[in-house]
Order: sequence, then C-alpha cells, then structure tokens
Amino acid sequence: MNQLSLEFIQGLKNIFPEGGLSLKPEEFPAFWLDRSTLKPQAPLAIAWAERAGQVAALLKLCNEARVPVTARGAGTSLEGNSIPSEGGIVLSLERMNQVLEIMPQDFEVRLQPGVVYDELNRQLAPHRLFFAPGPSSGDTATVGGMIGNNAGGLNALRYGVTRNHVIRLQVALADGSLLWYGTQALKTSAGFDLVQLMVGSEGMLGIVTEIVLRLQALPQRRTALAQFKTVEAAAQAVFEIMSTGIVPGALELIDASCIHYVNIYKGWEWEETPTLLMEFHGAPAGTDSEVSTARRACESLGATKFLLAENEAMAEQLWAGRKEITNAEKALYPNHAILNGDIAVPLSKYAATIHFAKEAGEAKGMPMTLFGHAGDGNIHCHVLVPPNVPGAQAKGEEVYSQIIRYALAAGGTVSAEHGIGLAKKEFLVEEHGEAVEVMRKIKRALDPNNILNPDKMFH
Amino acid sequence: MNQLSLEFIQGLKNIFPEGGLSLKPEEFPAFWLDRSTLKPQAPLAIAWAERAGQVAALLKLCNEARVPVTARGAGTSLEGNSIPSEGGIVLSLERMNQVLEIMPQDFEVRLQPGVVYDELNRQLAPHRLFFAPGPSSGDTATVGGMIGNNAGGLNALRYGVTRNHVIRLQVALADGSLLWYGTQALKTSAGFDLVQLMVGSEGMLGIVTEIVLRLQALPQRRTALAQFKTVEAAAQAVFEIMSTGIVPGALELIDASCIHYVNIYKGWEWEETPTLLMEFHGAPAGTDSEVSTARRACESLGATKFLLAENEAMAEQLWAGRKEITNAEKALYPNHAILNGDIAVPLSKYAATIHFAKEAGEAKGMPMTLFGHAGDGNIHCHVLVPPNVPGAQAKGEEVYSQIIRYALAAGGTVSAEHGIGLAKKEFLVEEHGEAVEVMRKIKRALDPNNILNPDKMFH
Repeated sequence: MNQLSLEFIQGLKNIFPEGGLSLKPEEFPAFWLDRSTLKPQAPLAIAWAERAGQVAALLKLCNEARVPVTARGAGTSLEGNSIPSEGGIVLSLERMNQVLEIMPQDFEVRLQPGVVYDELNRQLAPHRLFFAPGPSSGDTATVGGMIGNNAGGLNALRYGVTRNHVIRLQVALADGSLLWYGTQALKTSAGFDLVQLMVGSEGMLGIVTEIVLRLQALPQRRTALAQFKTVEAAAQAVFEIMSTGIVPGALELIDASCIHYVNIYKGWEWEETPTLLMEFHGAPAGTDSEVSTARRACESLGATKFLLAENEAMAEQLWAGRKEITNAEKALYPNHAILNGDIAVPLSKYAATIHFAKEAGEAKGMPMTLFGHAGDGNIHCHVLVPPNVPGAQAKGEEVYSQIIRYALAAGGTVSAEHGIGLAKKEFLVEEHGEAVEVMRKIKRALDPNNILNPDKMFH
Repeated sequence: MNQLSLEFIQGLKNIFPEGGLSLKPEEFPAFWLDRSTLKPQAPLAIAWAERAGQVAALLKLCNEARVPVTARGAGTSLEGNSIPSEGGIVLSLERMNQVLEIMPQDFEVRLQPGVVYDELNRQLAPHRLFFAPGPSSGDTATVGGMIGNNAGGLNALRYGVTRNHVIRLQVALADGSLLWYGTQALKTSAGFDLVQLMVGSEGMLGIVTEIVLRLQALPQRRTALAQFKTVEAAAQAVFEIMSTGIVPGALELIDASCIHYVNIYKGWEWEETPTLLMEFHGAPAGTDSEVSTARRACESLGATKFLLAENEAMAEQLWAGRKEITNAEKALYPNHAILNGDIAVPLSKYAATIHFAKEAGEAKGMPMTLFGHAGDGNIHCHVLVPPNVPGAQAKGEEVYSQIIRYALAAGGTVSAEHGIGLAKKEFLVEEHGEAVEVMRKIKRALDPNNILNPDKMFH
C-alpha cells in the first residue's frame, strides 16, 4: 500500500485535530530517519498524540485498516528502530512530555513517554533523586524511546539499564485497548512480567502511553581516570575493581584510538593509551575508600597515570575525552558515515575482542574508534566510512560484521543497548537461532495484523 | 483424565529408565504438595530427569497426549505453584543438580536447575563470588524453582531479585523443542527478552534445563539492629537511609509481634517494639561510614537502641530474631495453618499497611506476625489459623484477603516474591485486570495444548 484511503484519512482527522496531523510528510524529513546511516523512509502521515486515548484510537483505526504504525520519541535510535515502516504512519509522542507526579517518598515518578531524559532529571534534582541509566543521547532521547530500546548508558553498571527502572506502564495494544502492566510496588512476582516484555520491544508489542519509574537517590560522586600500557591491563583493572565488591557508578574504557582523535581535534596532549574512566558513588567516606582500592588495583597493573578529580570542573575535564569522541570523528572525518557497533561480550573476552576489532579495522584500512561500558562488557565501535569512495561502504560493513560475529562466537550479543531495528535483523537470527521463532509467536499473539512497527527486529 | 494410557506409559518408560520413573505416586506423598497449606494433589506419575533431552522428550510426549506436566525443584513454593495438576505428571529436576562451570573472570556460573541455592553459594565461595538474592528457604530451594517464581530474599534490595541475575536459559518448550534464550553478555537489548519472560512464569511457558547466572563479588558485611517506638519511625528510617544514596545489603523490618513470639519461644528479653535489621555491604571504610549515617538517621527518629555487630557471631545473634519467627510460630501455635502473605506496597504506604494488617488481625482475634524486606516495600504477614476450630479458616482467609486488597488499593502487588500459583489466582485478576488476558494470549501462543502446569496463575 502506498496511499491512504479517504475513509482512513477521515478517521485520522477525527482523532487528531488541526496541528496534530500532517498528511504532507515531505514537509517533515526529520521524521523519515533516525540517527543511523540507514536509508530514510517517508511515512504516509505523521500524527502527534497529546493523550493516551488518541494513541489507542489510532491503533484501533490502523488495525482495522492494516496500516503500519511506527512510534517515535526523539528519533535518537541508532539501528533504524524508529524509521517509518513502508506504507505506514509515524506516531510522534514528543508532545506527551509531562512529568505527571514525582513521588519522592516512594522513590518513584509517573510521566508521559515524550519526556526527555535530561529534562526528567532536572525536575527530579530538587528532590535529590535521579533516573540513573545515563544514555549519551540524554539531552534529546525520550524516556519512551529508552523503554522501546532498553537503553543503557554510563551508570547502568551500578543501577541497571532502563529495564531495571521501569515498574509500571500504560500500554495501547494493537487492537486499540488501553491497559496497565505492572504496579507501583518496587518488587513483584505476580504473573508473567509484561512490563519486562514491553521494555526493549521496539514498539512492536504495544505503544507506551504512561510510565512509572523507580528512582535512585542522587549519590556523591568521585571521578577518576587511569591510563594503561595495554588494553589487557585496563580490562584486568576493571575485573579487579569489581572483584572487591565495589559497584562503581561507571567504568568506561576508551581505547588509544579515541584519545588520538580527541587530541587532534581539541589540541590536547593526553597520552594515547588505553584509558579507564571511573565513577564511585555513595557517601564520601565510602567513595574515598573505593578510590583508594581502585588506585591500588590500577597501579599494581602498571597504570602510567591515575588522576582523581578534585572538583566538578575537573571531573568534567576527565570525562571530556569520552564525550568528545563523536565530535572529533565528525570534525576529522567530515561526511563519513559512522557504522555504530554496540556489542557486549563476557568480561574475560573484553580485551581480546578489542584487539580483534582493531585488527579487523586495520586490515581493511578503515579508521575506527573503540570505547565502551567496560564493567558491563559493552564495546562501542565506530567504523568510519568515507563518502563517495567505491567499495568503502562494503569494506566498512565487512569489518563491522566481523566484529559482531567475533562477539557472538565469544558468547556475546549483537546489541547491548541499541536494539535490533532494521540494521541487525540478520544478526538477531545468528545470536538467537530458533528462539527468534518464539519472539515471532509472541508478536503474532499480541499484534495479529502486524501493524506495530512491522518491519523491525525480524523478517 | 485420571489415568494414563498404556501407550503413554510405554513412552515414559522409553524416556526414563528404571529408577527415574514412578507409576506409584502414592509412594511419594511429598510430591503431592508444596509448602503452602493447600490441598495436596496426587499426580499420575513422577519422573526424575537427569538430562535436558529427557525433559524435552517428556514434553513432546505429553504435548501429543495432552497430559499436564508440573516441573518441580524442591517444592518450597508457598502458593501451590508446584502442586501437581490434576491428571498430570510431576517432573522432578532434583537430580539435575550439577554446577557445570564457574567462570570467575566473567562473574558468571553455568548450572543445572536442581542445584540448591546454599550449595551453589558454597561452591562459589572459594572464588569470592555469590548468587545474591538470599531466599529464606535457601537451604532447600533450587535455583530452577527460584527462577520459576522469581524468588527474592534478604539481599534483593542491593542486588536485585532472581530476575536480575539470570542472563541465559536453556528451555524445553511445550512442543519438545530445546533451545537457548539469552547470551552470556551481562547486558543485552537484542530482541524481546525471553529470559525475562521465563523468570517468574511458574513452569507455564517452558521448563528450564540449564542456567547461566551473573554473580556478585562477596562483599564485606556489617550488620546492625535498631529498635523504634513506632512502625512509622522505623519506616521513615528506611526511607532516610535510602535517601542518602546508600544501597544497603538488607533492610528488614520485624514488627513487635514477631519479637514477642520469639522472646517467649527462646526465653529472650528483647524489647517488643518495631525492629530494623540492616546490612551494609562493600569495602570496610565505606560500610563504616554507612553505618554512621544509618545510626544518625535512626537516632534522629528516636531509636531506643542501635546495635552494631562486632563480629560474625554477633551478626548471627542480631539476625536470630528474624530467623526464628517461623520456628516460634510453630512452637507456640502447634498444628496451626500459616496463611503466608507476600504483599509489597509503595514505600510511603509501608507503615500504614502494617497498621491496617495488625488491626485486621486483631479485629478477628487471629494471631499474626508481620515482617519483611522493608527497603523493597515487601511485607510478609503470617496469619495463624488454629486446627479444628469451626470458622477459623474462613476468618483467617478474610483477614488475609483484607490485607491483600489494602495493598492493591495502595498501588501494590499481591505477590512480591512467591508468585501466584493456585492460591492467588483471583487476586491476579484484581491486580492486573485485562492484562491477565495478555498473559493468557502469551500462554496460548507458547503452549497451545495447555500442558505446562496448566491450572496455575489464571483460570
């Protein structure tokens, strides 16, 4: 189908008033794509919901007319997760952006799906609370989108990924019904866990219209940086710190390649060696002791540098090396496409996986950066593909695929925190085999007409 | 159906050798029940699996013959979860009790489902690792059973419940296929999370035949006890400790009623007031600081006592009040049935829920104890029902139901960590409403002939 019937269009107009609906998607090219390098796809219409009832009514209409619906937060997904399905509608949740109720005594908040991550934390800060995962796209990403992709981030090591924070969801189902999954208890074991099934389902099993999150108390933070001669030493430091029973707020590894690009971009002179960024969260005396333990572990592994941030400004400086990676790439490799890998491997395979990835990139002459949430075994690799160079895209994809297959063979995953979307469908099958058929059965049971973001995750 | 066909029996014999099958279930009355007070149900046969292939073959046979199968670990469930289905088979996993591979560098372990919780931790201890939840039945409960019911325990506040530790499962499906869900990465967002769907599914979506758990480093522990004049003060202390950013290893509340019974039973003279038991986990300097913070919070709330355990023996003494509750009940109220409540409410409702429960019990003259994992909002209430007293069972059940409905109205759950089983089916509907129909759709999609523990969770 590549056009909408008049009856369907009238149905849309009945649900969405003037200003809440566009039948001219060509005017909104930003809605054709996400932050991946995948081909944009124009939807046939774009609707902006302001209430849950509109979402449910839209799904009922689309279900009867068999029109695909792709829910969209801020479109910061990296695997095509929110690229419109062909012949379908985009449902934007960006106007459902209200924090509805902060419940500090419960360590909970109730909110709409279009609230931006950083904005939520700004509103929570006066209560000394926060929603912890810490995605890099937090200045833009919506909480609804984070739930769709089970987003992780810097602080997932200590506090868990998005999945570990969601306790209740209002969900519009494919048939237009609107119901609640979960309760406001922090712990439950009552029936199949539908909340957990929704988290990471990429808008394919229902559309989230309201959310209750559990929150954490804002901790004291200490930030430290260590540099190592080898990736092995850095990875071993991660292992040894975690072995002491410390649960760090963050443990990020930045490979020498990242420091190299950031040095050129910013004019810095950091030593270009594997670098570990650490956060320790808790009460001051506890974090002081954790820093000492971490310092001993790093020094016993031959760390060439160990810097402890003395204040917030210095902590930001230490983090800058991590946060400028993408900016450096864009400045030094203008117009290059970034193939954005998101593998995770068992911790014992971390260093070997980084070596393999570097060698795979070098063998094809592709510039690449490697960094990641080392405490979770998560490695992001950016393969930089030059524009207009014949064969470069294919070479980049080959490197990218080699790295993913290495991770899978090591017992790891193709996606630690970005989801599957359009980009990783073939790898989902490689990772999960026949279990993908179980996912399909669940999809068919809850969306028999296959209208919810139907072209994502599996064929 | 109340007998098995000869053909089916031959099928069983082909799968399970002599000693692995009993067609005389009357010889094994322990397999007719769990640890609830529900009516025992005799199965038609009992099979003891020693390998995953037998489990899969049994399910294929039962699926073709439409014979129900109830998987069983140690039978420590409390809601009838592992009571055999009428006309069905019991599949015992207790012989699949091998720890297959300890992977200290990955913080992971691979094991069979019949491994007992405490035994697993005994084998992990030399590696300075542990599987954290800490169920009270840990000396008997199997890890497979913990997964079936998403068991919690003392340490769930810091480390999460069973759900948060399971990363990979081998599962036998209703049709006899055998496949893997999940990977060995500590973090993943690749497709619908089938591992999470299995955890807490009470043997209704498949039978777990092999498990990979993520582990925690064994921490240093400090144990402290505080006593308060009121439940409100104790609950407020829980809130204030958690508000500092401390994540305690345990935060257990014991109501005065528990202390009262334990005092009589053990001849102790503890003050009979609301009592908080606390564990602080981490490096010594950190836990010292956490203890100071907790002490200040407790004292500012008028705590009448604050005891810090100076050694392991004293820590055990402090915990004894909690651990002797059930023994005291059994000694003081011999032959009484215990209605074992397992609600959780949002933290701000904790004190009020305890008051409501006490008053509900007193109004009907039912002896009762209240205690629980306060940091999670979890309250266990034991309503003690005398034997052979006309009307007592009905009165006990009325009290029990009133408490559950209070918790549900407060936004809570009927089951924090015991599951639904047979005992709480009506409350599942009260808690989740139409969402139960979504659970049913998933059940039908994965077990179309309804052979997997078919009478549990919902009608």
